Amino acid sequence: MSKAPKTAIQPTRCEDYPEWYQQVIKASDLAENSPVRGCMVIKPWGYRLWENMQRALDDMFKATGHQNAYFPLLIPMSFLEKEAEHVEGFAKECAVVTHHRLEPDPAGGLRPAGKLDEPLIIRPTSETIIGATYAKWVQSYRDLPILINQWANVLRWEMRTRMFLRTAEFLWQEGHTVHSTAQEAIEETQRMVDVYKDFAENWMAMPVIVGSKTPHERFPGAVDTLSIEAMMQDHKALQAGTSHFLGQNFAKAQEIVFQAESGEREFAWTTSWGVSTRLIGALIMTHSDDDGLVLPPRLAPAQVVILPIYRDDEQRVEVLKYVESLKAELAVQTYAGAVIRVEIDDRDVRGGEKKWHHVKRGVPIRLEVGPKDMEKNSVFFARRDQPKSVGMDRAELVSNIGTILAEMQQALFDAALKLRTENSKVITSEADFRAFFKSDNEDGIDGGFAYCHFASEDEVEPLLKELKVTIRCIPRDGNDTPGTCFLTGKPAAKQAVFAKAY
Amino acid sequence: MSKAPKTAIQPTRCEDYPEWYQQVIKASDLAENSPVRGCMVIKPWGYRLWENMQRALDDMFKATGHQNAYFPLLIPMSFLEKEAEHVEGFAKECAVVTHHRLEPDPAGGLRPAGKLDEPLIIRPTSETIIGATYAKWVQSYRDLPILINQWANVLRWEMRTRMFLRTAEFLWQEGHTVHSTAQEAIEETQRMVDVYKDFAENWMAMPVIVGSKTPHERFPGAVDTLSIEAMMQDHKALQAGTSHFLGQNFAKAQEIVFQAESGEREFAWTTSWGVSTRLIGALIMTHSDDDGLVLPPRLAPAQVVILPIYRDDEQRVEVLKYVESLKAELAVQTYAGAVIRVEIDDRDVRGGEKKWHHVKRGVPIRLEVGPKDMEKNSVFFARRDQPKSVGMDRAELVSNIGTILAEMQQALFDAALKLRTENSKVITSEADFRAFFKSDNEDGIDGGFAYCHFASEDEVEPLLKELKVTIRCIPRDGNDTPGTCFLTGKPAAKQAVFAKAY
Repeated sequence: MSKAPKTAIQPTRCEDYPEWYQQVIKASDLAENSPVRGCMVIKPWGYRLWENMQRALDDMFKATGHQNAYFPLLIPMSFLEKEAEHVEGFAKECAVVTHHRLEPDPAGGLRPAGKLDEPLIIRPTSETIIGATYAKWVQSYRDLPILINQWANVLRWEMRTRMFLRTAEFLWQEGHTVHSTAQEAIEETQRMVDVYKDFAENWMAMPVIVGSKTPHERFPGAVDTLSIEAMMQDHKALQAGTSHFLGQNFAKAQEIVFQAESGEREFAWTTSWGVSTRLIGALIMTHSDDDGLVLPPRLAPAQVVILPIYRDDEQRVEVLKYVESLKAELAVQTYAGAVIRVEIDDRDVRGGEKKWHHVKRGVPIRLEVGPKDMEKNSVFFARRDQPKSVGMDRAELVSNIGTILAEMQQALFDAALKLRTENSKVITSEADFRAFFKSDNEDGIDGGFAYCHFASEDEVEPLLKELKVTIRCIPRDGNDTPGTCFLTGKPAAKQAVFAKAY
Repeated sequence: MSKAPKTAIQPTRCEDYPEWYQQVIKASDLAENSPVRGCMVIKPWGYRLWENMQRALDDMFKATGHQNAYFPLLIPMSFLEKEAEHVEGFAKECAVVTHHRLEPDPAGGLRPAGKLDEPLIIRPTSETIIGATYAKWVQSYRDLPILINQWANVLRWEMRTRMFLRTAEFLWQEGHTVHSTAQEAIEETQRMVDVYKDFAENWMAMPVIVGSKTPHERFPGAVDTLSIEAMMQDHKALQAGTSHFLGQNFAKAQEIVFQAESGEREFAWTTSWGVSTRLIGALIMTHSDDDGLVLPPRLAPAQVVILPIYRDDEQRVEVLKYVESLKAELAVQTYAGAVIRVEIDDRDVRGGEKKWHHVKRGVPIRLEVGPKDMEKNSVFFARRDQPKSVGMDRAELVSNIGTILAEMQQALFDAALKLRTENSKVITSEADFRAFFKSDNEDGIDGGFAYCHFASEDEVEPLLKELKVTIRCIPRDGNDTPGTCFLTGKPAAKQAVFAKAY
């Protein structure tokens, strides 16, 4: 018999981080694998979390002048061919529709029939189909800018999939904008990566680094790709959102042309930007612990759950009356501009099981209320990110609930920032770089963010491949002082963040 | 030169109803055809309308105990084969994915590659893939009911498409529930068709008849299909939502089995129910007129638009200050439990063009404000469904705006109900039936709802095919007195609604 402290999730993060991740998803009821290869089922608890993310992001997009619209799921194959780098980037992972009906197969069952003249691709991203539409909408500079976002499903036939982080089908939003000048498009690209940073840090409690991708890591067809990069608890980087300045590349491929004020006909400047259900994977890996999911209060579907404790039907009536009134009092308090989301769990389930149900699902605040608490006008209070439960005066709880949630939100951010700070290091030599990224731990947790000057992406690539490290970004607010390349000793203008990554 | 009164939409409803419909969509900027066969682009104004519909319906689903989740877009072909009637119903209109990448074609361009072992279908509806998941979730009666809804895109390869009414890809919600008893599932089917009726009548201002479909018209695989049926302005019926009692058919096909309290293993009882972007087509055809879209206030993206009128920059500053304060006053008033949605249109566009922009887009209330109105503390007021604009005291407008919107909402409902009443008729003979549905008008507007007793669906079918008439439903609150069949004179237990339909 093991004497290790028991945790709700087996294995623990230290024992096997990738498997811990899968077990947290299972225990928290967020999602599960589907019978369709690489596609997942997002279960109600996971979907409520996604709805909260969507609502917050959608409000931010609208506040920055964007409107939603909807474009077709299917893209004619010929559209994809128009932008050479783009098709290069996506051709290997496209689901292709070739037929439009099924007919009985003489050998039994069904077979595809009604072959299409031109195959259709399920959108892996919508630059090409949206661009073709914009080409019709844009005539004059008066029609610009176009500021549109789409909430949609997309499909990329990935070989190795992992729930939320990399699935064949995923849900996302994709913004697609058109501008009359390069400057305006560049500003849009910056504005939207800042929206993502705001969302990641202030809603997800996940600190991120904003920076530019190097040429090898850019979106296929983009001139510049900005991303937000976060550090997970295994010290790997996760790219959580991207914003692309597409220059005139797609405008030329799709013929998005406008008459300028001068009368000249010019190609437009476009951007695209997106975040996806991958954010849920990032959220899990940033905050969760060996007892399951930990949700930042601002996004939690339920922020407070109340568990009534009673021994018989008579007690039940009294306790339920009490917790209903407590719920009503809490539900008119506010946190971060919204009323508190409170639920009562009166299911007929054993107390321990019920408690762990909510621990594993990451509900920020758990209150247990039984006859003794009622007598004292108190509650038994537990904060998901703190080990001990405490008795708390009811009135004190009600008046402080907003503050308590704000404190927890901040504590989660601070802990994530601390982890990142402790595992970030400026590295100036190949030996130190190798030592930093050496994989000698069984748990797979090693390395972190290495800040290095480098002279040439081509020259460092063999070493990066060997160590399975990538250049995450050149931080926007990073070290602009020239230095020397950590690998070659050549002069190097900028410092980048290097890390193993999801 | 024609002396007919000029209308914003050409042709008018009387001249060519189907073409009028297309032109209203174009003029109101709701949507347009895409480069992909049968798929449309939903433009921002149309998508905002859909968002309002979604929000209202989603709240109603949640209030009746449902949660959202998300299931895969793709369905293995073998899943579809399991329910015989279901595959029969959908096999002819399935988009089939057969390959998972593209490769360079030696003849130039690209070609599909990476053939799948089993073809995948883009969901035409999700009973089969969701049922397969539910089969894993359901073990015991304690796991029931499952009450889940999904917001999603689906695809049915229709041969003749029309924007919103019948498109290859469309957006919808599909509820899928599982119950331990037939009675509970039947009640769910009724509950959800009543939600649809509530939404259609109280949000869309569109009166509907709730009834059961006859066997020939049922959803493939259903035991009973309930629908809501509305009358369009050309007197045709439009099925606006359906709720299916699936009995144990899908549970047997998908093996959704549970252990009952008695210990017996039993097949579960399932339902499904859905409404789609087709509702937007219904909305257009119920209320719009020869000047364009007319939106019921409760769903209008903007309920009030204010057009500032000025001659020069100096006036502009004053007028804008005035309309901003007017907007602020209006925007804290409420209608139907929500604050009023007010917009100011200060685009640099000629006055007449700007006015017609909002007329065609169906904004319920239009206010024009210039220096003279300011002097009198009044506004120039126009209600979209009334011919005349009038001067109105500013304070009076602000205090009455909620009432004004409520009156317009009611007036739209009343007008639609009047049209339906005037074009509904009890018919008891073949001669009268033929006369009622005779197409002798060039405009294609004829017939209406015929209430007829009928003895056998098979016997009336040839006549219905000849006249292009269908049985819409057997009304739930209809005439239950037995009568005689309008065609054969045989005894007939029930009366049904017959109509030409979309």
